Amino acid sequence: MASSQSAEDRLIARHFKPLATHPGAFGLVDDAAVLTPPPGHELVLKTDGIVGGVHFFLDDPPETVAQKALRVNLSDLASKGARPAGFLLTLALPAPIDDRWLSRFARGLGADARRYGCPLFGGDTVHTPGPVTISVAAFGTVPKGTMVRRGGARAGDRIFVTGTIGDAALGVRVRMDKKLARRWTLDAAMRRHLETRYLVPQPRNALAEALRRHANGGMDVSDGLAGDLAKLCRASGVGAEVDATLVPLSKAARRALKAAPPLIEPILTGGDDFEILATIPARKVASFRAAAKRAGVAVTEIGRIVVGKSTRFRSADGRTMTFARASYSHF
Amino acid sequence: MASSQSAEDRLIARHFKPLATHPGAFGLVDDAAVLTPPPGHELVLKTDGIVGGVHFFLDDPPETVAQKALRVNLSDLASKGARPAGFLLTLALPAPIDDRWLSRFARGLGADARRYGCPLFGGDTVHTPGPVTISVAAFGTVPKGTMVRRGGARAGDRIFVTGTIGDAALGVRVRMDKKLARRWTLDAAMRRHLETRYLVPQPRNALAEALRRHANGGMDVSDGLAGDLAKLCRASGVGAEVDATLVPLSKAARRALKAAPPLIEPILTGGDDFEILATIPARKVASFRAAAKRAGVAVTEIGRIVVGKSTRFRSADGRTMTFARASYSHF
Repeated sequence: MASSQSAEDRLIARHFKPLATHPGAFGLVDDAAVLTPPPGHELVLKTDGIVGGVHFFLDDPPETVAQKALRVNLSDLASKGARPAGFLLTLALPAPIDDRWLSRFARGLGADARRYGCPLFGGDTVHTPGPVTISVAAFGTVPKGTMVRRGGARAGDRIFVTGTIGDAALGVRVRMDKKLARRWTLDAAMRRHLETRYLVPQPRNALAEALRRHANGGMDVSDGLAGDLAKLCRASGVGAEVDATLVPLSKAARRALKAAPPLIEPILTGGDDFEILATIPARKVASFRAAAKRAGVAVTEIGRIVVGKSTRFRSADGRTMTFARASYSHF
Repeated sequence: MASSQSAEDRLIARHFKPLATHPGAFGLVDDAAVLTPPPGHELVLKTDGIVGGVHFFLDDPPETVAQKALRVNLSDLASKGARPAGFLLTLALPAPIDDRWLSRFARGLGADARRYGCPLFGGDTVHTPGPVTISVAAFGTVPKGTMVRRGGARAGDRIFVTGTIGDAALGVRVRMDKKLARRWTLDAAMRRHLETRYLVPQPRNALAEALRRHANGGMDVSDGLAGDLAKLCRASGVGAEVDATLVPLSKAARRALKAAPPLIEPILTGGDDFEILATIPARKVASFRAAAKRAGVAVTEIGRIVVGKSTRFRSADGRTMTFARASYSHF
């Protein structure tokens, strides 16, 4: 006679079943889940993984680790104009399992699943001799054929970004070297702001519908604004002219930049922003601004899409900026 | 001016773009993919991860590592009666990247993507200080409401398994201790058979439609037949009586078992079989056998679903067998 529930099953039931609120998840008691997009819609698919010691610090709060894992994917769905539908989770954990860590991880994940209307459809928990590794596959829905494409930008489009740029890149630097906060003349609230922006992305899912209705091209800014804009231009066969002085910065980032002007480079290329970069045809700009305002998401025009192949950032003195490394790459 | 292609982008373009044959994958140049199930169908979602040193040996051929990563998911889709539609991949790689390893990995993955009609929809490659870690999220399609459920078994159903059971559990033991092959009186071909069964699962996707048309309940056998049958029974609120002498064994497993009778325990509980366990109502058994034959998949009746809560395996002498550990658990 065989026992019918392993420790792994119990772990899943205790921590993750409460997140499986969609009927198609079958309460995680089946081997797979089912999902049907609404009539006339298609599914948007995205996967991103995060690794302990690479994408987050091993002593980060488990709640924010979970939120980061889900939100880096939600940010992609937002930039594509998609409405979150659900996600799958692969969780590789070192032994022995820290039940308290896992419980807090599941709590953070559950809070976001509710907040973004993105329930858990299934998962796999495995052991790893390496650090905690989390892979999320997220699904969203869009009316058929309306996904905002990376390759949709057209010459003449206005380039917009959401929120503020560079906070997370500065936040991770402050986190690793506490002396920087003083050198950058940051007060405690400013330091916390930057660190929090690295710790927990704020995906702009509220803007998804406005993007779908207005944007020619779009993507999320995860590997640095300069490099990601270059990718968007390459996919679209266009160039871009950006006025770097228009790039929206937080109070903390402005203060740091004033104290240390070379920070403009990590601000524009450091990544982990999880803001949205979108190109809006000129005739739709006013309507887009109004829709963004209704959605409660700050948007800022920073430049134009142009004919050509170059992505140029101009500084206050009108010169074209050069960067040692335009975007974050794992390899 | 920013360079528009990172090393990561080049790596993806070189190795993985050829696998993204579905138009909804946009050749991997966008941030997300789109997928629509055929009219009247829904998507079946599944994710499983494998970790170097846990689910495969670090010196396994990269081609088979890739195949194992995909096939453990394909096996779940098969057991649910679903037709493969595509997959997402998260690949965590130690630095420095071994380009030759990656090239062989992609080749193995591409061969299976074609073989099973399951193209790549997107992926994420990240760096890890740990071992190679691969997470696949696989999608299949079924006519709405027809997914074969783990909880669908009914008293009176006949219990079937595909292929042979226990090979992989013996194969991994032989792989770790070469002396076992002699102790188990295996010739070279038998040893190779067992090792290969661990190295490369043979998912039974050819049987998916027959399962959908005949099975009341089903799942794939990944954590050991005894434990997985107990899970199926628990989900279905039934018990099971299995005649252990009917459990199909390969020639190699039979030889090993004859030399070392206690091997019956790892055979029935060791896992990594990636065969299908299905319960078929008595009136559909003949039709199921015929459909399986047409599909070219061997199926064997091993027992019956009964009223109750116990999953019993009876040995040749009629006694109920007991197992130290009914199924593999990571924790």
